Amino acid sequence: MEVEIKQLLADLQSLDQSLPDPSLHASLHKIQSRVEHLANLVKAEPVRRSKVQDMSTEVVDSNPYSRLMALQRMGIVENYERIRDFSIAIVGVGGVGSVAAEMLTRCGIGRLLLYDYDKVELANMNRLFFRPDQVGMTKTDAAVETLSDINPDVVLESYTLNITTVEGFETFMSSLKNKSFRPSKQGSGVDLVLSCVDNYEARMAVNQACNELSQTWLESGVSEDAVSGHIQLLIPGETACFACAPPLVVASGVDERTLKREGVCAASLPTTMGVIAGLLVQNTLKFLLGFGQVSPYLGYNSLKDFFPTMQMKPNPQCSNVACLTRQEEYALAKPERDAAAKAKLEAELPTEEGPLHDDNEWNISVVDDSEPEGLDTRSSDALPEGLTHELPTADAFQKLPTDAPVTDNDDLEDLRKQLEAINSA
Amino acid sequence: MEVEIKQLLADLQSLDQSLPDPSLHASLHKIQSRVEHLANLVKAEPVRRSKVQDMSTEVVDSNPYSRLMALQRMGIVENYERIRDFSIAIVGVGGVGSVAAEMLTRCGIGRLLLYDYDKVELANMNRLFFRPDQVGMTKTDAAVETLSDINPDVVLESYTLNITTVEGFETFMSSLKNKSFRPSKQGSGVDLVLSCVDNYEARMAVNQACNELSQTWLESGVSEDAVSGHIQLLIPGETACFACAPPLVVASGVDERTLKREGVCAASLPTTMGVIAGLLVQNTLKFLLGFGQVSPYLGYNSLKDFFPTMQMKPNPQCSNVACLTRQEEYALAKPERDAAAKAKLEAELPTEEGPLHDDNEWNISVVDDSEPEGLDTRSSDALPEGLTHELPTADAFQKLPTDAPVTDNDDLEDLRKQLEAINSA
Repeated sequence: MEVEIKQLLADLQSLDQSLPDPSLHASLHKIQSRVEHLANLVKAEPVRRSKVQDMSTEVVDSNPYSRLMALQRMGIVENYERIRDFSIAIVGVGGVGSVAAEMLTRCGIGRLLLYDYDKVELANMNRLFFRPDQVGMTKTDAAVETLSDINPDVVLESYTLNITTVEGFETFMSSLKNKSFRPSKQGSGVDLVLSCVDNYEARMAVNQACNELSQTWLESGVSEDAVSGHIQLLIPGETACFACAPPLVVASGVDERTLKREGVCAASLPTTMGVIAGLLVQNTLKFLLGFGQVSPYLGYNSLKDFFPTMQMKPNPQCSNVACLTRQEEYALAKPERDAAAKAKLEAELPTEEGPLHDDNEWNISVVDDSEPEGLDTRSSDALPEGLTHELPTADAFQKLPTDAPVTDNDDLEDLRKQLEAINSA
Repeated sequence: MEVEIKQLLADLQSLDQSLPDPSLHASLHKIQSRVEHLANLVKAEPVRRSKVQDMSTEVVDSNPYSRLMALQRMGIVENYERIRDFSIAIVGVGGVGSVAAEMLTRCGIGRLLLYDYDKVELANMNRLFFRPDQVGMTKTDAAVETLSDINPDVVLESYTLNITTVEGFETFMSSLKNKSFRPSKQGSGVDLVLSCVDNYEARMAVNQACNELSQTWLESGVSEDAVSGHIQLLIPGETACFACAPPLVVASGVDERTLKREGVCAASLPTTMGVIAGLLVQNTLKFLLGFGQVSPYLGYNSLKDFFPTMQMKPNPQCSNVACLTRQEEYALAKPERDAAAKAKLEAELPTEEGPLHDDNEWNISVVDDSEPEGLDTRSSDALPEGLTHELPTADAFQKLPTDAPVTDNDDLEDLRKQLEAINSA
C-alpha cells in the first residue's frame, strides 16, 4: 500500500504544477494533506521484528530468546542454541499441528516443514491458532503467514498436499530426504516427524515413510469426544510401528469411514488439543536438546486428569515390510550399541589420575538390556564406593545372543486390554 | 482508514467540478482511480466475523460452534450453550493467563475480565499468544484486540492495574462484585477466578479477595526453571486457602524478591505454559459445565511426564481471618449440605410407579463424608437390587457432631514432604 500512496502523491504534485487558477491550489493542498495522513496511517501498521544473528543470553526486554537461553543457566539444557540446527516436519496443521508449529516457532527451531491440504473454516475457530480473517486460506499458507510474523528466524516450508495420494506421498518423501538445510546431517533431512493428523490412513502414510527412511517420529491424537488424547514415540525397528499394533477399530475390522456418518462431526476442544500439542512439543524439545526423559507413550484422560503410560516392542509379525527390515537392522546392530554404551560408560568413569565426577547433574544412566544372568563380571574393585558397572565386560559380550528382539505373544493382547481400560475409564 | 478514503474521494469529486481546463480532468481521473484502488486494498483487509445470536449445532464449515456443540451429542456435556452465562476473571495475562483467555474465548465463554499492569515485550515472544507487532501495548489491551477478533460474542473487560496496590485491589474487588452481566447470579459477579500470576504477593491478593467474597478460584503456576507447573482448586472454607499452606520458600522465611537477582531472569517455555493453561481451562470447563471430575490439585513434572495429585483441607490455624470465617460457615452449613445431598439422592431414586433409572450415564455418586459407624439405618428394602442408601436417615443426622472440620496436625508436614518429593523428582 505504501507504493500506491507514493504514486498518488507524485501525481498530485504534478497536477498542482499544472493548475492555472490559484483558488484551486487550496483544494488540492487539502487533498494532498489527506493523502499524507493516509500515508502515516499505513506506516503505523505493524512493523515486523527483524531477524537475529545469534541467540543472546542478555536479559533485556528486547531479546526474544532471553527466557529460552535461561534454560542453560537454570541447568536444564546444556546448549539451547543447538535448536537452530534442527528440522521438524509437522504433518497435519489442524488443532494439534498448528499449535505445535507455533510452540516450535516461538522456541526458535531451525526449520519447520508443514503439510496439510485443508482450508481454514469458521468451524476451526474453537481451537487455538487460526483467526477468522484467515477463513478460505489453505492451512499451510495461513500458518506460514502467522508463524513468519511471530519469528522470522525460522525457515518455513509449506506443502499443500495430501500425503495419502500417490503424488502427495512422493513429494512428502522427497521433502523429508532433502538435506539442503544441514548437508552434514546423517539419515534423512529432518530430525523428527510429528504426526498431527486426524485419521488412520494418514497415520499409515507417515508410518510407511518413516519406516522406509528409518526416521524417528512422534504420533499424536485426540479422541472424537474431545476429552482424551495421547502422544507416542516411534523409532523404526526399536519400538512398535503404527502397523505393529493397529488401533482397536481397525483390529476389529470396522472401516473408519463408516463411523463418520453424514452430518455428524467430531467434537473438539482447544484445551485438550493445547495440552496434547504441549506434551508433544515438550517431548520434542527433550528429544532434540537431550534433557529429561522422552515418554514412549503418554495418554491424557481429561475427565479424570489421568495420564497413562506404556511401552511397546515391535511386532515380529508386523504386516509392514519396511518395519521388519528395520527390526532386523536393529537386532544386527545390538553388539555395536552395547559396545558404544560400554565405551561411553567407561569414558565417564574416573581414570586413576583424573578428577572424580561425584555428581550426575543430568541424571544420565546407562541401562543394560541384555540378560544379566551369569555375567556378573563387574570389576567393582576399580570403582569408587557407591558406583558399580551396569554392563558386563567386553569378553562377556561374545557370549550374548544377537537374535531379533523377542516380543511376548501377549503384547498385543495386553495392549488391547490397556486401551479398553483407558477408553472405559 | 475507510473513512479517510471516503473524504478524499469526495474532495476529488468537488475539485473535478471546479476544474476549468478539460486537459486537467484526465490527470485528476487518474488520481481518482488510484484512490479507488487504495479503497479496494483497504476493503481487502480482514473482515471480522459477525456475532451469532444462538449457538447452533448445525454441522457446516461456517459454524464456529459446531465442534463444541458436538460435545452434547457425544454425551460429554448436557447443555453446552450454558457457557454463555458464565463470567471468568483471569488475573495475570502472561504466558498462562493469555492462553487461558484465548481458550475460553474460543469456547464461547460469556464474559472475561482480564487484569494485568504489564506491557508486551519481545522477551515475551517465547510464549504463545502475543505478537511482535503488539510490543509496547499493555497486555490487557493487546489481549482484548486479539480476543475480540477471534470471537466477538465474548464480552471482554480489561483492567490495566496492579492488584497488589491498595487502589488496584479495590477496583479488583468491585469488578468481581459487579453483577450487571447476570443480575440473578448468587454470590459475586463471576463464576470462577483464575489466578495466572507469577509471584507470591499477587497470589495472596487473589486469595484475600476470594476469601472475602467466598469465591471459588483456580490457582496456577509454573516453576522458574520452566519445566514444571501446577493447578489447584481453592474453595473458601472447604479446601486449604493459599495462606493455609504457604509455599516452602515463604514457610522457610526467604524473601521471594531476594531470589530474583539483578540481571537474572526466569526461564520459560511455551510448552509448559500451554499445558498448564490447557489443564487449567479444562478444569474450568468441567467445573462450569458439570462433566468429569475437577482436580483439587494437579502437578506437571515435564522432565518425567509425571502428574502428581493431592488434596488439602483448610488449616484451622490459618493466618487469614476471612479464611477462618469461611471455615466456620462451612462447618455450620454441614447439616444443610447433607440434607440437600440426601434429598437429591432420594429424588433420583425410583418412586413406586415411576420408571427405573438403571444406568448412570454421568457416573454421579453421592459420597457420605460423615462417620458411618453405628448409623446403618439404610432402608435397603425400599431400593431395587444393587442400590443402597449411601447416607443415613434424617433422624440419624441429629446425632452427628457439627464441629469445624478436623485437620490432622500432620497435614502441613505431609504437604511439605510431598512438595519436596515433587521438587526433587
